[in-house]
Amino acid sequence: MQAIPKAEFEKRVEAFQRNIREAGLDAVLVHSNEADFANVRYLSEYWPTFESAGVFVPAKGAPVLIIGPESEAYAQGRSVIPRIAMMVEYRESADPEYPGIPVAHYADVVRMAMGHRVLKKLGLAGFSIMPLPVYLSLQRELPGVELVKADDTLTSLRTIKSANEIKLMKMAYQISEKAIDAILGEMAPGMTELQVIGIAQREIYKHGGEYEGHALYCFCGPGTKHAISRPTHNKIKRNEIIQLNIGARVGGYSSSVGVPCSIGKLAARKRRLVEFGLDAHLKTMELLRGGTPAAEVVREYEEFVEHRGFKGHMLYGPCHGIGMMEVERPWIESTSTYALQENMTFQVDTFFQDKDFGLRWENGVRITKTGVERLSQKYMKMVEL
Amino acid sequence: MQAIPKAEFEKRVEAFQRNIREAGLDAVLVHSNEADFANVRYLSEYWPTFESAGVFVPAKGAPVLIIGPESEAYAQGRSVIPRIAMMVEYRESADPEYPGIPVAHYADVVRMAMGHRVLKKLGLAGFSIMPLPVYLSLQRELPGVELVKADDTLTSLRTIKSANEIKLMKMAYQISEKAIDAILGEMAPGMTELQVIGIAQREIYKHGGEYEGHALYCFCGPGTKHAISRPTHNKIKRNEIIQLNIGARVGGYSSSVGVPCSIGKLAARKRRLVEFGLDAHLKTMELLRGGTPAAEVVREYEEFVEHRGFKGHMLYGPCHGIGMMEVERPWIESTSTYALQENMTFQVDTFFQDKDFGLRWENGVRITKTGVERLSQKYMKMVEL
Repeated sequence: MQAIPKAEFEKRVEAFQRNIREAGLDAVLVHSNEADFANVRYLSEYWPTFESAGVFVPAKGAPVLIIGPESEAYAQGRSVIPRIAMMVEYRESADPEYPGIPVAHYADVVRMAMGHRVLKKLGLAGFSIMPLPVYLSLQRELPGVELVKADDTLTSLRTIKSANEIKLMKMAYQISEKAIDAILGEMAPGMTELQVIGIAQREIYKHGGEYEGHALYCFCGPGTKHAISRPTHNKIKRNEIIQLNIGARVGGYSSSVGVPCSIGKLAARKRRLVEFGLDAHLKTMELLRGGTPAAEVVREYEEFVEHRGFKGHMLYGPCHGIGMMEVERPWIESTSTYALQENMTFQVDTFFQDKDFGLRWENGVRITKTGVERLSQKYMKMVEL
Repeated sequence: MQAIPKAEFEKRVEAFQRNIREAGLDAVLVHSNEADFANVRYLSEYWPTFESAGVFVPAKGAPVLIIGPESEAYAQGRSVIPRIAMMVEYRESADPEYPGIPVAHYADVVRMAMGHRVLKKLGLAGFSIMPLPVYLSLQRELPGVELVKADDTLTSLRTIKSANEIKLMKMAYQISEKAIDAILGEMAPGMTELQVIGIAQREIYKHGGEYEGHALYCFCGPGTKHAISRPTHNKIKRNEIIQLNIGARVGGYSSSVGVPCSIGKLAARKRRLVEFGLDAHLKTMELLRGGTPAAEVVREYEEFVEHRGFKGHMLYGPCHGIGMMEVERPWIESTSTYALQENMTFQVDTFFQDKDFGLRWENGVRITKTGVERLSQKYMKMVEL
């Protein structure tokens, strides 16, 4: 119920291999780690834990999953790719030596996947997280093979979501809403930001989540000013902005719901920015539809914010891709050069800040021909408890 | 209360710089990411989130924290290193372009940290997780600078724990025990493995944890056979082994308590291996003391297991380092070439498996001159609910 069917994984590999051939590559080596798990899991359902992982995908033929020395039984039980190689390059970062455990080398993996076919040009996907031991071993063990960045051959597939993917994302968003329900029912002055996160974690797992979809946020007061931060042992106070960004993950698909709230009334100045933030959030959703150039969304959004007089409060936004990762390609930026397509999924992520606080509305949408389908909307309202 | 004092961070940087000079290096670039956060946090208290981070530490002079383009306010509030540079190489893996945000290059960072002193030889720490964008930019922007692996200059410091570090680890272990208390009180047949994890997460945050110390384990039945795995939606059953490995993190210091248990009686064959596992676990603790060569611990442990007739059930063990990371250097392996020292901290990690199940006892210890101080011991007993 909470996983992509095996046949869909096979279709993904086939589509990926078409992209590999079109890019003039003989194969692509894909990389993931425990936190940045998506590329390997997209092809195999395998989620590396403690160790990292790769998938070696030849332009034609069967792929090979590459794991670290401790995960053989785990990978055999989980991977939809049956051929598995263990390599020391994918070990835990504490660099154990594993005396007595036999490991493969890249030449072995190439032989497993390609037989006697020649490897001249190897693409690398997951380039921005590919670590030195992998890269240096490729250079040493595959001399003469050209290594090229090839993220697009894979991320172009991940950008357009299937019906099964959308279903898992909707489940994840529903669980995030339930976690916010519970927080709003239990949160009280004197509770720490981290204790609020504990409520969210309990609900995520209770309702069928497999993990948090991202580092969960509960910030109170000045801490809300940070675009990225970590919850602290600071205590929740009355009449302060409390920022919640809560995301569940289901079957490898992430979500996040962001809602600014307060216990008691907010000062009028703060309330005004929170309410304007929601207007801007809804405006972005109006601007999104299949066929619209991504950069145009940004231009119109920024015009809207400027026209309403809040340009100086804008740091960030308005959207980034969401799917397996809570933040994944593509971003919607002023420099974007693509047009929105049906079944792309975006996190509408509306962040404004003043000198002493910030606020962030977050909900997910699926692009349709005529606009968007909202993946969550229960908390698109100002909450004063 | 739950953090390392600022003065201790300054001492760490000074000790690190002595190691840098002794290694004949002009500087070391340290790398961390959200999951593998320890090296950067050890020097700065900064914990990268979504993005990655580095610390550029010159042989003499003041270090520079390097962050991604979204974390400026977060880093200013959190880092004990005041000088901070933003670089695109440390951005999120979804590769946003951040139009309009000014970023630095490695030459700028070198100038900030070293002024006009010459950089000829640069060490790299966190080598096994250092990603390609960092490495390729170093090669391009610092031509002629020799890049060498230099993990030992930093991990040698992290291996011996201070009184403050031990205190945070003990707090983390106590929270892990409380989480297991709650699980044993609430776990019931029909609950999923993931729902049990939700209980642990709730307790970790409730009692002052900042995060899980590692990917939490609850496996039931055949799933217990895996050394590495992920909890599933499988339901807990009576009269089956249930494996719990629960770890809290406090102030950047991790813990884990592992206990095999059951609801109702276990079959005699399974119970026998669980009980032998505990004997072996206690045996390891007897073997540990300051001055003992690490490899000798492994030899004596393996002799003990073989003598008792369980050699065929041994996959893994008996110890790995623990501290900021739940698994960190050094491991205790047959190939280890160092001797145990006072205030090293190890996770005694005793794993045995049979054809259809496995079990894993886990507790932490601090090495003393005469033996060990146990960092947790409440659950060093077979639990049948």
